[in-house]
Amino acid sequence: MDDAYERVVELAKRRGFFWQAYEIYGGVGGLYVMGPLGVAMRRRLEELWRSMFIRRHGFAEIDAPALGPYKVFKASGHVDNFKDPVAECLRCGRKFRADHLLGEAGIAAGEGMPPEELQRLLNEGHVKCPECGASEWRVSQFLTMFETRMGPYSEDVGFLRPETAQGIFTEFRRIYEVTRERLPLGVAQLGRGFRNEISPRQAMIRLREFNMMELEFFMDPEQPCPYLDEVSDDVLPVLTEEVAERGGEDLLNVRVGDALDRGVIRNGCLAYFMAISLRFVGALGIPRDRQRFHGKPAHERAHYSAQTFDHEVVVPGFGWLEVAGLAYRTDYDLRSHSEASGKDLSVSVKLPEPELVRKVRWRVRSVEELKRAAGDRWKDVMRIVAESDDPPRDIAALGLSMEGLPVVREEVEERANVRRFYPHVVEPSYGVERLMLAALSWAYGVREGRAVISLPPYLAPVQVAVFPLVSRDGLDDRARRLADALSARFDVMYDADGSIGRRYARADEAGVPYAITVDYKTLEDGTVTLRYRDTWEQERLPEDGLADKLNGLLRPPP
Amino acid sequence: MDDAYERVVELAKRRGFFWQAYEIYGGVGGLYVMGPLGVAMRRRLEELWRSMFIRRHGFAEIDAPALGPYKVFKASGHVDNFKDPVAECLRCGRKFRADHLLGEAGIAAGEGMPPEELQRLLNEGHVKCPECGASEWRVSQFLTMFETRMGPYSEDVGFLRPETAQGIFTEFRRIYEVTRERLPLGVAQLGRGFRNEISPRQAMIRLREFNMMELEFFMDPEQPCPYLDEVSDDVLPVLTEEVAERGGEDLLNVRVGDALDRGVIRNGCLAYFMAISLRFVGALGIPRDRQRFHGKPAHERAHYSAQTFDHEVVVPGFGWLEVAGLAYRTDYDLRSHSEASGKDLSVSVKLPEPELVRKVRWRVRSVEELKRAAGDRWKDVMRIVAESDDPPRDIAALGLSMEGLPVVREEVEERANVRRFYPHVVEPSYGVERLMLAALSWAYGVREGRAVISLPPYLAPVQVAVFPLVSRDGLDDRARRLADALSARFDVMYDADGSIGRRYARADEAGVPYAITVDYKTLEDGTVTLRYRDTWEQERLPEDGLADKLNGLLRPPP
Repeated sequence: MDDAYERVVELAKRRGFFWQAYEIYGGVGGLYVMGPLGVAMRRRLEELWRSMFIRRHGFAEIDAPALGPYKVFKASGHVDNFKDPVAECLRCGRKFRADHLLGEAGIAAGEGMPPEELQRLLNEGHVKCPECGASEWRVSQFLTMFETRMGPYSEDVGFLRPETAQGIFTEFRRIYEVTRERLPLGVAQLGRGFRNEISPRQAMIRLREFNMMELEFFMDPEQPCPYLDEVSDDVLPVLTEEVAERGGEDLLNVRVGDALDRGVIRNGCLAYFMAISLRFVGALGIPRDRQRFHGKPAHERAHYSAQTFDHEVVVPGFGWLEVAGLAYRTDYDLRSHSEASGKDLSVSVKLPEPELVRKVRWRVRSVEELKRAAGDRWKDVMRIVAESDDPPRDIAALGLSMEGLPVVREEVEERANVRRFYPHVVEPSYGVERLMLAALSWAYGVREGRAVISLPPYLAPVQVAVFPLVSRDGLDDRARRLADALSARFDVMYDADGSIGRRYARADEAGVPYAITVDYKTLEDGTVTLRYRDTWEQERLPEDGLADKLNGLLRPPP
Repeated sequence: MDDAYERVVELAKRRGFFWQAYEIYGGVGGLYVMGPLGVAMRRRLEELWRSMFIRRHGFAEIDAPALGPYKVFKASGHVDNFKDPVAECLRCGRKFRADHLLGEAGIAAGEGMPPEELQRLLNEGHVKCPECGASEWRVSQFLTMFETRMGPYSEDVGFLRPETAQGIFTEFRRIYEVTRERLPLGVAQLGRGFRNEISPRQAMIRLREFNMMELEFFMDPEQPCPYLDEVSDDVLPVLTEEVAERGGEDLLNVRVGDALDRGVIRNGCLAYFMAISLRFVGALGIPRDRQRFHGKPAHERAHYSAQTFDHEVVVPGFGWLEVAGLAYRTDYDLRSHSEASGKDLSVSVKLPEPELVRKVRWRVRSVEELKRAAGDRWKDVMRIVAESDDPPRDIAALGLSMEGLPVVREEVEERANVRRFYPHVVEPSYGVERLMLAALSWAYGVREGRAVISLPPYLAPVQVAVFPLVSRDGLDDRARRLADALSARFDVMYDADGSIGRRYARADEAGVPYAITVDYKTLEDGTVTLRYRDTWEQERLPEDGLADKLNGLLRPPP
């Protein structure tokens, strides 16, 4: 492993893309700050995502709270499942992620291994504590959601969301209504996720607080994916679940259509979003042949997923990095929240023609008989039979026995005009900071000993630099006016400090794709030089057409 | 009070601007969801803020974590000061904000009144518990930051930030470096703030999680504000501290220049940002004569502030609402974090000519004498005198007495080429949700019995609606193509459901300023009708020039 990764992190810190937060207090693991260049680059990344995933499909975007009450994350399965194994050193009390300790000691530990097993491996492997050198361990499960109290009562536990998705599922009913009750329905959300990592170390990769771009795509599981035609000839690089399971690395390069036919991908819209994901990540400047979709075997998948592919890319000097997860969540989430909240999140679609549907119905055979059997509670029983979805349970709750009651269960066939179901969900979910790190790593180059950040122009935080050749004879005023005029449409850097060569170098390092210099000739004929970051070539052109020229150069892919 | 406020909240919910979060679980007080229209409107509001406060001054924008460690909020003063008085009913145990209970009972309670005093007022006033009717109370202080644990150790306490500002102050050193060490320096941040309200009730006003737009403007307190000329004739509506203190409501309408001369506003840049704030809030469609700057008397100001004006606006059906705070924070924050972290956050500026500066210096009068007096610790004393900023303290810490030591304190004059100081800070800070609520309230109108949301066009979530007159004869295809083409530059709503009248009504209610209808004439001559939301007037014009026309109509104020 070379130092490419460290060089990118160093440059990001020095030029203000991002750095570890609270440095003056010694820093806090897993918390990062986006500096001025980082914020601007992130905004462009988000715009590209919005245009490729949201706008072109006419999807909705919402913004839900980062805080949620206990019952939401209990229902979603996170309280029970969102855990990492923590190993505590029995001598010094320090805590580490058990699987990471084993990994560093060269002992294989599969994802999802129970704590007792990890503890046995640590103790029998005599794995040393990195802090004190002892090798006696106790392993337990650690809930990696941040917990807090909402309001003044200690029992009102809340959590910071580990994914933005739950804020879409819990609000599904209202979103479905305000978007006029149609499927498929895409609902996107851009926002913070939180994960209480046990001991985060790698810069911008294992973060306690991070930005996500998530899309929950709700669909009728009986309908084909409406967008498939557009991508069915796209070729996806897939590390299949089977190959991944046995530790292999061989990629299957497979057409979207074939992947579906052969069952490599089990849902059409999942395949569609994988194809779009490949295009999107490619548009960030990350080569297609350095990307893959890593199929997760069942025991490594999140609790809600029927199929998951991690979208991974090679980060120079680091290796494979997961930048997105594409999951087929089925109806797990809407069903869970319906059951936990008692509010029905299913939808109904009109059938082309009525269908016969088998239904269970409960009936009182004879009211007279019921009066004799149930005494003065016969009216309660009548009400239960009419309203309850489980009469035996509710009758038992009254303290009555079903035996001897004239209450019968019947199966009937009914003609139904609508079909009710929980929409199924496909989710592409991106980690913003990881995408930024990957894009910066691929953009990082060295030319004549100096760093040049060759981000695609539509991702560059500063779009154009304006320099006066020298700061006198009115060149600076003229350049300043040009910079101000361009600021109405672009993110502009004006720089008059030091030699023109040093200013070009500074702009290259900040990834500015185009630099304009105002010189003495400008005063004569109104032309300026336009210099290209990636070729260092210059051309002379009139000030007038500059804005339109730049607009064309900065346009993202269609 | 009429029901204007409730009607706006109802429309916001029905059309998907915003609604209370987690409704299916009974809702959680103080947590709201921004729906599709809300997210889009918020983005435009943020862009307007960015253009008026950030871009035109060339300021920087960063994005820091919402989580921070205990010591950051201890140093900032929040751990000690960010508290509300909570009254607990001694019979049923329910808790309420003590000052709100008193207010509802018609008993005056000043901001900042100690808990014992509030408790006495509640008990002597026999204020009844809204829950159980008892009237025995215990009042204590409640820390209104959300507290959590960061990582697996219970002692690692962290908080969710109550303001984004601290993430700028703690990172000041690095931001100052990457922006090339210049003052004044504006650093903006847009993001979530959190406040653990005791019992939040009013929709979108008292939130536990909210969005802020904050600007920290760092300046040399000895320099005049460089932007003042632009606004010195602007007239500000001020409720002065003195008038506010004695409960008055009379406004002083005062020129910015006069307000500074007369000491009504105590800092030039504070006055400048107040003038910009008036323009900004006016650009949201809130009339100037329904705005005021409410000067806060010393005991009502936050702990860091030397002067604060709340920017308040009238919300129809609600009354005065604070939408921003403009505070002169002096050097409180940088000084506090310097002292707490041990890292110097002061800056130095070069003096035009060297100045004489008085300094305190410690000196050892005679080394021989010191050896006799301090024995084998004489070297330690030498080192302390050379390095310590408080030699008597550190010598005492060695266990030695200053008495009898040949260590002397001298005052000397030195020529200094630079001046070191902590930059002073002026902060305009906006509550995004409150601005949205206020803007929607003023935009809300009724015409012929139907709601019309007349937001300024540049704030409208959906910018243009496209309708086919009927969904046949190719009109729908033609309209759909037009909508797709316009989508490249605008946020477009395509709607083909129901009568054209119903579609206009739906668009009016969503605040869409322009609606285009494709009809049979379009097929003949390529013209469409453009209908204006606020006048219901229509004009006929060619499809070709539409995009440029809309672009002009949607442009924000310069």
